[in-house]
Amino acid sequence: MVKTKNKNYLYVDIAQNIEQQILDGVLKMGDKLPSVRVLKQEYGVSISTILEAYYRLEGKNLVESRPRSGYYVIFCANSVPDCPTKTNPGNRAVLGNVTGMIIDFYEMIGDENMINFSLGVPAPELMPIAKMTKTIHETVVKLPAGGTYYDNIQGSLNLRRQIAQRTILWGGAITEQDLIITAGCTSALSLSLMAVTKSGDTIAVESPVYYGILQLANTLGLRVLELPTDPATGMDLDALQRILREQRIAAIMVVSNFSNPLGSLMPNKHKQKLVRIIQEYEIPLIEDDICGEIYYGRQRPSTCKYYDDSGLVMWVGSFSKTIGGGYRVGWVAPGKFISNVMKLKLYLSSSTSTIPQEAIANFLAKGRYDHHLRRLRETLHTNSIKYIGAISNYFPEDTKVSKPKGSFLLWVELNPKIDISVLFERAQAQHISFTPGSIFTLQKQYSHCMRLCYGIVWSEKIDQGLKKLGELAHEMLFDM
Amino acid sequence: MVKTKNKNYLYVDIAQNIEQQILDGVLKMGDKLPSVRVLKQEYGVSISTILEAYYRLEGKNLVESRPRSGYYVIFCANSVPDCPTKTNPGNRAVLGNVTGMIIDFYEMIGDENMINFSLGVPAPELMPIAKMTKTIHETVVKLPAGGTYYDNIQGSLNLRRQIAQRTILWGGAITEQDLIITAGCTSALSLSLMAVTKSGDTIAVESPVYYGILQLANTLGLRVLELPTDPATGMDLDALQRILREQRIAAIMVVSNFSNPLGSLMPNKHKQKLVRIIQEYEIPLIEDDICGEIYYGRQRPSTCKYYDDSGLVMWVGSFSKTIGGGYRVGWVAPGKFISNVMKLKLYLSSSTSTIPQEAIANFLAKGRYDHHLRRLRETLHTNSIKYIGAISNYFPEDTKVSKPKGSFLLWVELNPKIDISVLFERAQAQHISFTPGSIFTLQKQYSHCMRLCYGIVWSEKIDQGLKKLGELAHEMLFDM
Repeated sequence: MVKTKNKNYLYVDIAQNIEQQILDGVLKMGDKLPSVRVLKQEYGVSISTILEAYYRLEGKNLVESRPRSGYYVIFCANSVPDCPTKTNPGNRAVLGNVTGMIIDFYEMIGDENMINFSLGVPAPELMPIAKMTKTIHETVVKLPAGGTYYDNIQGSLNLRRQIAQRTILWGGAITEQDLIITAGCTSALSLSLMAVTKSGDTIAVESPVYYGILQLANTLGLRVLELPTDPATGMDLDALQRILREQRIAAIMVVSNFSNPLGSLMPNKHKQKLVRIIQEYEIPLIEDDICGEIYYGRQRPSTCKYYDDSGLVMWVGSFSKTIGGGYRVGWVAPGKFISNVMKLKLYLSSSTSTIPQEAIANFLAKGRYDHHLRRLRETLHTNSIKYIGAISNYFPEDTKVSKPKGSFLLWVELNPKIDISVLFERAQAQHISFTPGSIFTLQKQYSHCMRLCYGIVWSEKIDQGLKKLGELAHEMLFDM
Repeated sequence: MVKTKNKNYLYVDIAQNIEQQILDGVLKMGDKLPSVRVLKQEYGVSISTILEAYYRLEGKNLVESRPRSGYYVIFCANSVPDCPTKTNPGNRAVLGNVTGMIIDFYEMIGDENMINFSLGVPAPELMPIAKMTKTIHETVVKLPAGGTYYDNIQGSLNLRRQIAQRTILWGGAITEQDLIITAGCTSALSLSLMAVTKSGDTIAVESPVYYGILQLANTLGLRVLELPTDPATGMDLDALQRILREQRIAAIMVVSNFSNPLGSLMPNKHKQKLVRIIQEYEIPLIEDDICGEIYYGRQRPSTCKYYDDSGLVMWVGSFSKTIGGGYRVGWVAPGKFISNVMKLKLYLSSSTSTIPQEAIANFLAKGRYDHHLRRLRETLHTNSIKYIGAISNYFPEDTKVSKPKGSFLLWVELNPKIDISVLFERAQAQHISFTPGSIFTLQKQYSHCMRLCYGIVWSEKIDQGLKKLGELAHEMLFDM
């Protein structure tokens, strides 16, 4: 009998059990699943619950129903591409900028013809547009002065309360006083970094790392030291410790949950260890947790912030990936640097736009956010299986791909002979876009890698797009 | 016969003629105005038009109607306090910050008991709240993806077009390509300043200068050289030229129209001369024109940008003072620095919130903005006369006060023996707030001055607040 907290979601638990067995290779390609009747008795539930579970697995392309025969596994765990190996960037702090291309990604947003795997955000179809529109209407008419007046510098109290309450999900003891609302995650990161560094300093980051961090660092005159990073478990903490024995690092930036682009999830022990290290060396840690709510597992993963009692961890988040980047609402709990961050926010940008803040606060208060997140996670998890399946089918055999446990980004490592900038150009000519790996570093590496966003709803067009990408990669190998 | 472009506003022209004669002292306190019949014949208009004009003057506390007798002047031009003299700050660049107090002003926003002359914004009653609420509703339902998607980095095309079109009012040749939308004016100023300076540089500003500029400069590690400034005509350009012959200035910041706090309006010849100077020395000029639309005269004043063909002028504006600071929508036309500013915006903060931008664009497109501005200007102009009248009645005789021709700020210079920080504390105890002059400089000066915001709708309570302030100033002089 399956244990579950909520009997309405019994079918989810049943499906997850079977799914895990398929992904682990216990149930193999072609295996027949137990009949609906057998499972009904085994779990002591209704037939419709079992059917719901099977429909769910069918929706993920893991099983198929054969007429008058039953359900069969159609996913081969063994044929899934390997995970990329741990990265090994050069051990040298670099001052510089990534080159070109990035403003262009924004330009593509409106291009209907492009199959756009290069965006770092789920597609609009996955956002709660109708409910947010309704919430905005409800909010604006009730707002004092219709939201025309400057909000206080720290940000909407309603919103800070809602964000603080959600930290209970990972055991956070954050209060509304600990939080500063910012105009999106980028502002939270830039204000945090400005609060704890000065031009000429060196910061340590994962490698590969979100190019926005590299651009931000360069803008602030900061050198960047890229650390070896495991696609599954994140930043290599032994490497970090070796570095710290040798040189001063002004701040560490980490995406502990579902990093961008690697998708790594730091195990709790690593989070705890990282906090011990920063406490030993008294180094501020900027923890970007922007996708922490988009987990596929049963529980919201924890944060480094949870393990910190020193105030050195600056916990950053945003609604950009879960409600909409267009609202520009993010936050930071800057620990002991709160007054510095607050002053920087006041001096450089003043308060945050009132209406988006209050609308999101109401959306959360009414429970609409949790409902939406469940659906979002489910869709993205399904997408991840479908996308990885398609890559397995279409890409050259030596392709490696990450297996993220949350968010919506895949890191694909192709044969090292493939020049990703050439593949990028050829794909663009076919109206397919992705993010070349080479812009996630300041060094000469990842030039055979790409980041694929699977936040676009699965369709025949997406399948064909991935097939075409695979063909282009095959052709490039064949040409050599 | 009055010449006018629009016969619907004949009464406005008639009222303005009389008003000017009163303010100039041609018509004196106690003088009887011509009878309605006489004016009707003189102007060749209807009786109701003349009555409209007289009602208007009555509304401004300039004339009163005496039963069976007619209209009389009740405003004494001679008794109006003198304008403060030109400022004379020390000729030394200072690196440092203004002290304390500023976050507190935001905290006061919600305090109903406080008579708050310290805000730098018109009161909510003067903002187009109902019409903006309606516009937001109309906008959100029509927006692609409900505004959830990231806007492009440069900002809403609709909004940039509307802003560009309005520059026709001052002969600007700004196009949508020239503009970058920012999250309010503060962001526009900080991005502009970051684009043209580096830590250790010196910038030149008016003195007194908006404390936000001083905080921003300190945050960026910039020294500030404060220039002598005339309350009527603004920055002393001869002083600027003397400085430039001696030292390198990385950028000049100026509020050419209705400066904060002095209220000065640079004559066109000064604007033209300033542009010649910056071109000669190749110095970027950041022109903050945030209140340029709140003029009391017949025409929108011009800008330095108008006279610039070199691309050195970065023209900055915002809707914070005319529609609502809570929306956080500003802009900059950064001239030849546009790609620098765009990159900084992308790296430090990403795109601007979509819904406020599109709602404001629609508000402008529907002509609602012009209608609203006419009413706003009229109310604030009337307020300026009433506030100056009250200061004239209640404050010590040697008080000097600025005579702004736009915006909503008065600069009040008290007897130099008065310590403004003491007056500030005593006023706070009486639930009256103003902005102490000492925070508008990095030097030891203006410690007998205050800035009063007259953006609060005139009422008995305001009158009593100013009376109380005057009494407190009298007491302080008497105590000495």
